[in-house]
Amino acid sequence: MTTAQAYTPTPRTVPTRYRERARYDRATVHGILDEALICHVGYANDGRPMVLPTTHVRLGEVLYLHGSTGSGPMLAAAGSAAGLPICVTATLVDGLVLARAALHHSLKYRSVVAVGNARLVQDNDEKLRALAALLDHVASGRSADTRPPNARELAATAVLALDLVEVSAKVRDGGPVDEEQDMTLPYWAGVLPLTLTAGTPVPADDLDPTVALPPYLTAYRRS
Amino acid sequence: MTTAQAYTPTPRTVPTRYRERARYDRATVHGILDEALICHVGYANDGRPMVLPTTHVRLGEVLYLHGSTGSGPMLAAAGSAAGLPICVTATLVDGLVLARAALHHSLKYRSVVAVGNARLVQDNDEKLRALAALLDHVASGRSADTRPPNARELAATAVLALDLVEVSAKVRDGGPVDEEQDMTLPYWAGVLPLTLTAGTPVPADDLDPTVALPPYLTAYRRS
Repeated sequence: MTTAQAYTPTPRTVPTRYRERARYDRATVHGILDEALICHVGYANDGRPMVLPTTHVRLGEVLYLHGSTGSGPMLAAAGSAAGLPICVTATLVDGLVLARAALHHSLKYRSVVAVGNARLVQDNDEKLRALAALLDHVASGRSADTRPPNARELAATAVLALDLVEVSAKVRDGGPVDEEQDMTLPYWAGVLPLTLTAGTPVPADDLDPTVALPPYLTAYRRS
Repeated sequence: MTTAQAYTPTPRTVPTRYRERARYDRATVHGILDEALICHVGYANDGRPMVLPTTHVRLGEVLYLHGSTGSGPMLAAAGSAAGLPICVTATLVDGLVLARAALHHSLKYRSVVAVGNARLVQDNDEKLRALAALLDHVASGRSADTRPPNARELAATAVLALDLVEVSAKVRDGGPVDEEQDMTLPYWAGVLPLTLTAGTPVPADDLDPTVALPPYLTAYRRS
């Protein structure tokens, strides 16, 4: 069986505005999810919308999130037999887009919205695999360079899985788009690029000084 | 009348986990909202959670968001007489926190969660003020250095206002916290700082070369 190159648009994944910015190909979606350090997960908390930041990782066509078994989304998921309806949104801000006209300003960005019912991972092997991958998503190779979870820690940690089925990306690239009659106005127009940049690693106060900085923390970058 | 120094915690703004990281003082909340370039807004779309990235601005104790009158949240807000229940979450990622133990890893971050019913701004002056402030939030001083919205653009743009009442911040600072028995493990522990950094401004292809780069784009930073 081959996997289609693109996700199938649905009413919930076709944006109401700027449809020309929508992307459904897996390569674009995967690239954004993999580069984004964090995502924002939305769910209903007693019937009211709640949005929380968290780290995520994609393994094939499954997106994993984790949290304490006592955290809001995990408690909500534990209480929903059919899975917890969630929306996971990951956004990369690549720059400011300054136009001559106030309402033509924009951001240069890439985002993914994934919706569906998330399930609590019950299988222990899948849970361990997801937790290791979450760590490697943050710093590639880190899971093999730490003390693995023990039984007590595992029991206190819940993992949510969302199958990537209803998914779309939105990409805003390029410079400002101004109206013809505004072109001669004396306002600067263009793009100010923005990047998430790593600084100098700060060792813990109690770090054994013979422990070297691992290679995955030198020249750290997300893309 | 004096404004209290802090927001009053409610069941929806007291986190279920890491309560010691919660902050309710206005100075912390305002600082995070003002520094964050974007937020993620959650609302119910046909009863299912939807989370979208957008820019925001705080004016006093009101948070403003804008969008096309035809966008999802604006249509939903137009249809709800009592206001649209939303959750606005703004997150600043300040670094990676690497611990010796896999499940003690964390991020250094600051986030704000604001919940409540948002109203569509009807008053034209308030709308213009919010739109100018949104631009100045992105680049301080920009609203006075662009072509202001005209009547047609204004009619196509909706502004949502959320009173900052049910609000909390969460701040994770400091180094990793490992368990005593893990301290001698040979794994690097510490913090890798992360910052959103501006690159070199890229003028639009069609920019009049006599228009100088404005001062608010040189040495641009959020904090």
